[in-house]
Amino acid sequence: MIGFEFLTPEEREALLLVTSSGLHVIHSSFSPLPDTIPYQKYPGTYPNQVCKHLIQILTAQPALREIFVDASTLFLEEYQAIEQALKGMSLGIKLATLDREKIWSLRRVKDELEIGLLKKSAHIAAQSFKKVRSQLQVGMTEKQVCEMIEAEFRSQGTKKPAFPTIVAFGANSTLPHYQPGDVQLQDNMPVLIDMGAKFERYCSDMTRTFWFGNQPEAKFQEIEQIVKDAYQAALGKLGQFFGSQAPGNSTLQAKDLDAAARGVIEQADQGEFFIHTTGHGVGLDIHEPPSLNWHNEFALAAGMAITIEPGIYLPDLFGYRHENTVLLTPTGPLELTL
Amino acid sequence: MIGFEFLTPEEREALLLVTSSGLHVIHSSFSPLPDTIPYQKYPGTYPNQVCKHLIQILTAQPALREIFVDASTLFLEEYQAIEQALKGMSLGIKLATLDREKIWSLRRVKDELEIGLLKKSAHIAAQSFKKVRSQLQVGMTEKQVCEMIEAEFRSQGTKKPAFPTIVAFGANSTLPHYQPGDVQLQDNMPVLIDMGAKFERYCSDMTRTFWFGNQPEAKFQEIEQIVKDAYQAALGKLGQFFGSQAPGNSTLQAKDLDAAARGVIEQADQGEFFIHTTGHGVGLDIHEPPSLNWHNEFALAAGMAITIEPGIYLPDLFGYRHENTVLLTPTGPLELTL
Repeated sequence: MIGFEFLTPEEREALLLVTSSGLHVIHSSFSPLPDTIPYQKYPGTYPNQVCKHLIQILTAQPALREIFVDASTLFLEEYQAIEQALKGMSLGIKLATLDREKIWSLRRVKDELEIGLLKKSAHIAAQSFKKVRSQLQVGMTEKQVCEMIEAEFRSQGTKKPAFPTIVAFGANSTLPHYQPGDVQLQDNMPVLIDMGAKFERYCSDMTRTFWFGNQPEAKFQEIEQIVKDAYQAALGKLGQFFGSQAPGNSTLQAKDLDAAARGVIEQADQGEFFIHTTGHGVGLDIHEPPSLNWHNEFALAAGMAITIEPGIYLPDLFGYRHENTVLLTPTGPLELTL
Repeated sequence: MIGFEFLTPEEREALLLVTSSGLHVIHSSFSPLPDTIPYQKYPGTYPNQVCKHLIQILTAQPALREIFVDASTLFLEEYQAIEQALKGMSLGIKLATLDREKIWSLRRVKDELEIGLLKKSAHIAAQSFKKVRSQLQVGMTEKQVCEMIEAEFRSQGTKKPAFPTIVAFGANSTLPHYQPGDVQLQDNMPVLIDMGAKFERYCSDMTRTFWFGNQPEAKFQEIEQIVKDAYQAALGKLGQFFGSQAPGNSTLQAKDLDAAARGVIEQADQGEFFIHTTGHGVGLDIHEPPSLNWHNEFALAAGMAITIEPGIYLPDLFGYRHENTVLLTPTGPLELTL
C-alpha cells in the first residue's frame, strides 16, 4: 500500500505496476503523491497515456512475460484497453488475473503499526459516540446528530468517516443501511447509531442501539438482552479458542463465530430477524475478508481485526444492533472500541 | 437513472438490468431503494446471488439473445462471473459491451427538470463561497475553511459536496487536486477554493482564486488578468455561436472552446503552465463528457451544461484558476454560478 489517497474513487487517479525493477505509479498529474516509499512516477492517466506509460515500462523489461491484473479494482474497459495495447506491442506478454487471496493473506493479519492505528481509530469512534450521546436532545434530527458525530471525528484529526454514518430513530433502525433524514428525536424511542472513524487510513466500526428516554419498552429490553448475549457468545467463542483454555490443534472458522451469535438469536426464536452476517474483517477497507458468514470456513488467527455485530430487526418496530471492532490476540480477543 | 443512492461506491449495492419486460434491480437488502419508478427487485448482491438472479431473469425471457454490459462501471471480476454464469446456462446468450455514447447522447443534453436542479446546485455553491469568504480570518487552517464551506452546503440542504472541496493557501494552489491541510491563512497570500454542491444528485463546480490581504502582488494581478481574459474568451466564443450573431450551419467543437481559452494564455507566454483542459460536462457526475480538451471534435449544443475553468500554475509560487458552471442555451451561454 503506497499511501496514495484518491480524491474520489470514481475517478481513476493512479495505477500501480509492480515489477522486479520496482514500483511504477501511473498517476494523475493533478494529484498529490506521497513521498513515503520510493517509486517511479508516470504522470497522465487518460487511457491513451496509461497505455503509453505501460509500453514504456514493459519495453524496458524484456524478461517480463506476464502481467497480473486486479480484477476486483480494474474496470472492464481499462482491462480491455490494456489488452489492446499489449496486442499492439506483439511482445508476447500475457495478461492474467491476480489471485486476490495473495493480497489478503498479507493484509488480513495486522502488524504492530497497523494495530496502533486501528486502536486509535476505534478509540476516536468510541469517544465521539460518548460525547454526542450525552448531548442528545428532543427535537434534534437524525441529520443533525450525524453531523455532530462527524464534526467530533474531524475535531480529533480524522478528515473522513470510514463510511457514511448511520443515525436512525424509531422504526428507521429496521434498515441496516439506512441514511439519516429529517426525523426528529422524541422522548421514548429507540436510536441506532452505526459509525466508524478513519485514522491515518485505518477504519473502525461500531454500532450502539439505545432507548432515548427513561423507561425502555419491554420488547426493546428483551431484544437488547438477546443481541448482547449473542455478541458475548461470539466473543466467548474467541476467548475459548485464543485464550488460556485454547484447544490444541483445532481451528476456529469464521462460520463458527457466526454460529455462536446466531445460535443465541435462533434459540430466542428471532433467527429470521437476524438478516446479515455476524461481522467482517476491518483495516484499510471498512469491509475486508474474512466475512463472518454462515458458510465461511476460513480459519481465524491472531493479528486479525474483525467486527462482531449481531442484530435483530423487527419490521415496523425497531432494529437493534451491537457492534465492536475486535482484535484477535494470542491471549484472547481484545475489544478495540473503547 | 433510477435514483438509487449508494452508501459508498466501493461497495456494490445495486445492479440494473433493462429488458423489454422492464427494469430489474439486483440490490443489497440493506439498502434503501427509491420508490419513484417501477422496477422489479431482486435482493442479494453477493456474487453467487447476482448470478442466481440473472439466471432467473433470463430464463423468464427466452427471446433475449444478447446482454450489453457497461464496461466503465463493471469490474473485471463481475464481468467474469456473469460470463461464467451464462456459460453454465447454455442458452446461447452473448455478452457485449454497451456503447457508452448511447447513454451520453441521452445525458449530455439536460431537460428542464435537470436544468432547475443544476441552477440550484450552482447557486448553493456560489452563495456558500460568498458567505465563507466574508468570514475568513488570519490563522484559520485550510481544513477549517473547507469545513466551513461544507457546513454551509449542509445548512442549505445538500448532504454531500459534489467532490472533496479544495482549499489551498499560497503555493499549495499550484497542485490542481490539492487537499486541505493544516497550513494557516496569513495576510497577503493567494487562496484557491474549488468547490461544488450536489443538490438532488446534480453537481455544480466552481473555482475562485483571490488575494487575501490588501495589496495583491503584481505577479498575481498579472496572472489573474490573463486567466480571466481566457475565461471570457471561451465564454465569448459560446456567445458568438449560440447568441444572436450565430453563424448558419457550422458547428462549435469542444476543442474550439479550449483553443479560445488556451490561445489567450499562450499569447501571454504562459501556455506551459496551463496544465489541464478548459472544462468538462457536468450533471449527475461531476465530470461528464464532453471534455473540453485540445483534440475533442464533439459538437456542442444547446442544453448542455459545462464548466469553463482555465488556470495557470506557476511552480513554487501559486496557481490561479477561475471556473464557473455554464449552461448552453439557444440564445447564448448562461453562467449558473450566481
